[in-house]
Amino acid sequence: MHFASDNWAGAHPSIAESLVRHAGGFAQAYGTSELDRRVEQRFAEIFERECEVFFVGTGTAANALSLTAFNKAGGVAFCHREAHVIEDECGAPEFFLGGSRLHGVDGPDGKITPENLQKAIARFPAGFVHSGRPMGVTITQATEIGTVHSLDELDAISAVCREHDLPLHMDGARFANALVSLDVSPAEMTWKRGVDMVSFGGTKNGCWCAEAIIIFGNRFTGELPYIRKRGAQLFSKTRFIAAQFEAYLEDDLWLKTARQANAMTTRLAQVFEQAPGARLAWQPQANEIFAILNDTTAERLRSAGAVFAPWKLPRVTDVVLEQNEQLYRFVTSFASTDDHVDQVQRLLTNA
Amino acid sequence: MHFASDNWAGAHPSIAESLVRHAGGFAQAYGTSELDRRVEQRFAEIFERECEVFFVGTGTAANALSLTAFNKAGGVAFCHREAHVIEDECGAPEFFLGGSRLHGVDGPDGKITPENLQKAIARFPAGFVHSGRPMGVTITQATEIGTVHSLDELDAISAVCREHDLPLHMDGARFANALVSLDVSPAEMTWKRGVDMVSFGGTKNGCWCAEAIIIFGNRFTGELPYIRKRGAQLFSKTRFIAAQFEAYLEDDLWLKTARQANAMTTRLAQVFEQAPGARLAWQPQANEIFAILNDTTAERLRSAGAVFAPWKLPRVTDVVLEQNEQLYRFVTSFASTDDHVDQVQRLLTNA
Amino acid sequence: MHFASDNWAGAHPSIAESLVRHAGGFAQAYGTSELDRRVEQRFAEIFERECEVFFVGTGTAANALSLTAFNKAGGVAFCHREAHVIEDECGAPEFFLGGSRLHGVDGPDGKITPENLQKAIARFPAGFVHSGRPMGVTITQATEIGTVHSLDELDAISAVCREHDLPLHMDGARFANALVSLDVSPAEMTWKRGVDMVSFGGTKNGCWCAEAIIIFGNRFTGELPYIRKRGAQLFSKTRFIAAQFEAYLEDDLWLKTARQANAMTTRLAQVFEQAPGARLAWQPQANEIFAILNDTTAERLRSAGAVFAPWKLPRVTDVVLEQNEQLYRFVTSFASTDDHVDQVQRLLTNA
Amino acid sequence: MHFASDNWAGAHPSIAESLVRHAGGFAQAYGTSELDRRVEQRFAEIFERECEVFFVGTGTAANALSLTAFNKAGGVAFCHREAHVIEDECGAPEFFLGGSRLHGVDGPDGKITPENLQKAIARFPAGFVHSGRPMGVTITQATEIGTVHSLDELDAISAVCREHDLPLHMDGARFANALVSLDVSPAEMTWKRGVDMVSFGGTKNGCWCAEAIIIFGNRFTGELPYIRKRGAQLFSKTRFIAAQFEAYLEDDLWLKTARQANAMTTRLAQVFEQAPGARLAWQPQANEIFAILNDTTAERLRSAGAVFAPWKLPRVTDVVLEQNEQLYRFVTSFASTDDHVDQVQRLLTNA
Repeated sequence: MHFASDNWAGAHPSIAESLVRHAGGFAQAYGTSELDRRVEQRFAEIFERECEVFFVGTGTAANALSLTAFNKAGGVAFCHREAHVIEDECGAPEFFLGGSRLHGVDGPDGKITPENLQKAIARFPAGFVHSGRPMGVTITQATEIGTVHSLDELDAISAVCREHDLPLHMDGARFANALVSLDVSPAEMTWKRGVDMVSFGGTKNGCWCAEAIIIFGNRFTGELPYIRKRGAQLFSKTRFIAAQFEAYLEDDLWLKTARQANAMTTRLAQVFEQAPGARLAWQPQANEIFAILNDTTAERLRSAGAVFAPWKLPRVTDVVLEQNEQLYRFVTSFASTDDHVDQVQRLLTNA
Repeated sequence: MHFASDNWAGAHPSIAESLVRHAGGFAQAYGTSELDRRVEQRFAEIFERECEVFFVGTGTAANALSLTAFNKAGGVAFCHREAHVIEDECGAPEFFLGGSRLHGVDGPDGKITPENLQKAIARFPAGFVHSGRPMGVTITQATEIGTVHSLDELDAISAVCREHDLPLHMDGARFANALVSLDVSPAEMTWKRGVDMVSFGGTKNGCWCAEAIIIFGNRFTGELPYIRKRGAQLFSKTRFIAAQFEAYLEDDLWLKTARQANAMTTRLAQVFEQAPGARLAWQPQANEIFAILNDTTAERLRSAGAVFAPWKLPRVTDVVLEQNEQLYRFVTSFASTDDHVDQVQRLLTNA
Repeated sequence: MHFASDNWAGAHPSIAESLVRHAGGFAQAYGTSELDRRVEQRFAEIFERECEVFFVGTGTAANALSLTAFNKAGGVAFCHREAHVIEDECGAPEFFLGGSRLHGVDGPDGKITPENLQKAIARFPAGFVHSGRPMGVTITQATEIGTVHSLDELDAISAVCREHDLPLHMDGARFANALVSLDVSPAEMTWKRGVDMVSFGGTKNGCWCAEAIIIFGNRFTGELPYIRKRGAQLFSKTRFIAAQFEAYLEDDLWLKTARQANAMTTRLAQVFEQAPGARLAWQPQANEIFAILNDTTAERLRSAGAVFAPWKLPRVTDVVLEQNEQLYRFVTSFASTDDHVDQVQRLLTNA
Repeated sequence: MHFASDNWAGAHPSIAESLVRHAGGFAQAYGTSELDRRVEQRFAEIFERECEVFFVGTGTAANALSLTAFNKAGGVAFCHREAHVIEDECGAPEFFLGGSRLHGVDGPDGKITPENLQKAIARFPAGFVHSGRPMGVTITQATEIGTVHSLDELDAISAVCREHDLPLHMDGARFANALVSLDVSPAEMTWKRGVDMVSFGGTKNGCWCAEAIIIFGNRFTGELPYIRKRGAQLFSKTRFIAAQFEAYLEDDLWLKTARQANAMTTRLAQVFEQAPGARLAWQPQANEIFAILNDTTAERLRSAGAVFAPWKLPRVTDVVLEQNEQLYRFVTSFASTDDHVDQVQRLLTNA
């Protein structure tokens, strides 16, 4: 019953196998091998559009380097106030941006609202050097609290970006989970909505360490090769990242693993909805559940070996906790099984 | 006949196997799993001393983050003028150092001389803010040109560092190759010589991507966890780096792979010494050969499928090239075989 | 009727005179002249304690460099959400901090409350690298909205800092205005309250460009000379900054100019309190008035040549604006006169 | 007999007077006053071309911010190996460049040769991310060792820059001294030679602190306002810098003060040429003399109160010092007088 995080799971067997398959022989280093090229081309097919692809090692790197591509002196990038980039990356984006800032924008359900985004941008009047200047927007899909932006919501945010000529970045650490939740194509969830660049995460969904920066169009690509190398993210044996992605993208493995993770979340959410001593803080849409458990319930799960973590309430929320309650996060992954959920169900039902 | 670089080789089968072995199940993320702990402990055994161990993904990261640990405003780190940190990392160290500088010091055989180091340090008088101030020294073992610092040479450099209270960092991208070349223990080549921190490279010697920053004593360790996370080098599924190192360090695998690489260099060097149209620029001591080939010889190798790269002459050198000659680098690795060398031998002998 | 800002005023005649007096002859450069030494000593007298003094050219520099002195990787400095450092310096602090972050804390009257500060610090649990770590606190005295921290309020904030071992910095761009408002000694408003370092501003209060970083104790001083030089703030002819401060601090000139500025604010505030179509947004305590004017009143003042600026409402405030009202800022300085205030009074009374 | 540096001199009386003249009244802050505008326009007249003008407070700021305007990830700016930017600014350029590097190029007489520049650029092959990439060139006029680039020399360096599409920056800390030495117009020494941007120094030539970044064309100007503010170099009361420049540029004051400084150097150089125990290391062309004195001579001057500093020999030089000799620098300024020179002459002649 491991629900601590999707990065507690290991690698999917097919991905491990691909790694081994590409372990032998010699291949060009630093992103120039045939396999690297082939997988980059595969991304173009999946996104139905030419795109630039830059493999990096961590999600933090994908985010930080992406934002760096549109960096400006005195620049400000807008994100949700509880976004991973601003809350959980130890200032890596600001570090790679050389001190440019992230500006948190509020909004319910882990999503910035277009209105709040407009207001936030308005705090930086054009040409007023003292406040600095807007340089881009980054959103998280699926969000930090397990919700998913609808296509309409993406359009609305994107429209604000276009109005102010701000590039739009999508932190897709859980890209696949959002995608199968919306049941749309990668193109529909990204550049057709006006998204300019994506941190495409594979790690949480079955890879070991496979993250890619995907850039549509060519506004930012000239800088990225240097930004990546200077950022210590150009791996010498890049073929191993490519090998992970090759297996990940083959025969829709990535969609299957994401569907499994999401399905287990759906089942587990039902368990919490029906069990005494448990309720959902809000409706999960991907592979994360935020559940409110009373102390007895939480203790029962924990004693039985369930692994899950207490979580901070969002700063803007309708959720009210009773005295003996606490918010917890449960994350499912490709490695979560019906058996895990059944165990929880048994524990809560037989209470 | 692949001699382009040791990072063109894949992963050693034992290491690939270890990866697969650790692919399943759940484990704590971000460097806190049992395997992480166990492997860190293994390093302490190997170095015969308590040490702090920080896994990172690339050699550039290991170097840049190591140097950051002793960073100072206006600081200057001394390295050989042709060192990898100053020549081949796209400014990553200076970037991570926030603009602190690397200062190239000359010396024959890819090694800074104690005299030149003293002179270089003397250019930064204490308290004279205009020039900045010395903050550390970094050397490469084995060096960029395939030579190896002897224990005496390490002592001599280290003595200068102590005199000026400068931490000494060793870029050990080819640590194992140097170690087996000197036939000493890891402790003897590092902290017993006054080395304070090591970029311990596994990638070039049979891992996929496994680098570790090893810190002796505790002068710098408090900062590293934050520097690593902020530097986007804290992998979520760190157990996979740990898994590589576990296999790497087991049963002296790392020494065996390094011995194989060095042995192939020794054999290939003999071939060049005896073949017409070829000569050694200088004596190799680890797993890199710098050979001077005339154009006919080079072309013959290339036509037969040998992969190797033309190389820049060091700025300080006795080597003189004839008009139809060029300097080339040949690198051997754990994956190099007698057969590769035999092929070169046949090609050069039957000229 | 110039109320746009205290930095629209020129230099006080005594300060201009001092500049001229020190214009001739030769003197050591880069902060080492006798005059530099003498003025530094004068600061020690004024603060009744040995302190380190670093002259810089702008208030932004004083703040940014001060914070740099206690910079840490992944570090977070807490400030009021509407503080100058976070709102009006174009990201200079974050730039000089190499990407370390400012974290806005709410509180009424332009002051962070100890409770909110505790909560904010609690969001960064010790050792949890993902969120980063607290490294210091900075407050503004007088605040951005013209209020002044009482000694008790300073004590309360300082107590939280001590509890978490966080250095406390005071942005004293309007230090003198706060001091004469509280009618206490510099020591009582700073180190006796637990303040570790001050951006001591002279510019807004009658100097041309004279700012000093004052550091009590010696925790941070070793770095500052290098941080200042590297930050391009070590002036060659520092004696000219020293000359300004010499006149500024002589015969309590700085207190007199501040008293004049504050007195004019007090008088002008009374005018607004009594005039129809005008009211105070909150009670001014130093040399800034935030007044709510209806459009007719604002237009009348503007037509008559009064210079003042519309202002953003604080994000946390009880102030409610009517439809035809707007918030405005009026700043007085040493150069403000009774005549300026009388003119406003006449304009508003004869409405 | 003050020859320590031109920044030991104070301010020219006309400049001090201008400061006082502009000390009263109110004026717009942050570079937007009428005086600011007027003086910016004056620069356009002087350079016979529209140009963008950014006042800053120190020469280090002028250089560092200028270079930042053409900064690139992994970028390398070429300068003479002994240039002020690389030797005497405590790493400020690299700091403001976020870690981009300065690459020293050798050449006699304090000037990089076009051949050496070509060679240096060639070390950074296009698209080879490991080494980084050229991003600009900076030269010093007059040079650090008191020589002056001829127009032909400027053309030759500029041609290399054009070939590689590299912006050319001129560090003009002693711009006026070079200009009157060459006896050409500002336009002829800058943009007509292909110079894209100038650090125009007033401080060493009679101002207190007045430096300007002058940019020809508009390739870099959009960024500078933000770079300057973020760099803590946007002074609130900018009119005071403008006031200095107004007097500096009026009635050719700046050329007169430079001519006086250069003339005193010419006279003093003759003294050294004729005196026993003294000789010139090389021929001075502006306002700095590098003289070799034997110990007796040096001691005689020093005992008589002359102020001057021992100097490091350039790393590439023909100069050979005898055992009892030492290299010294003597700098003259607008404040140097015939009397100073006469005293030296008497001391050396009556030896």
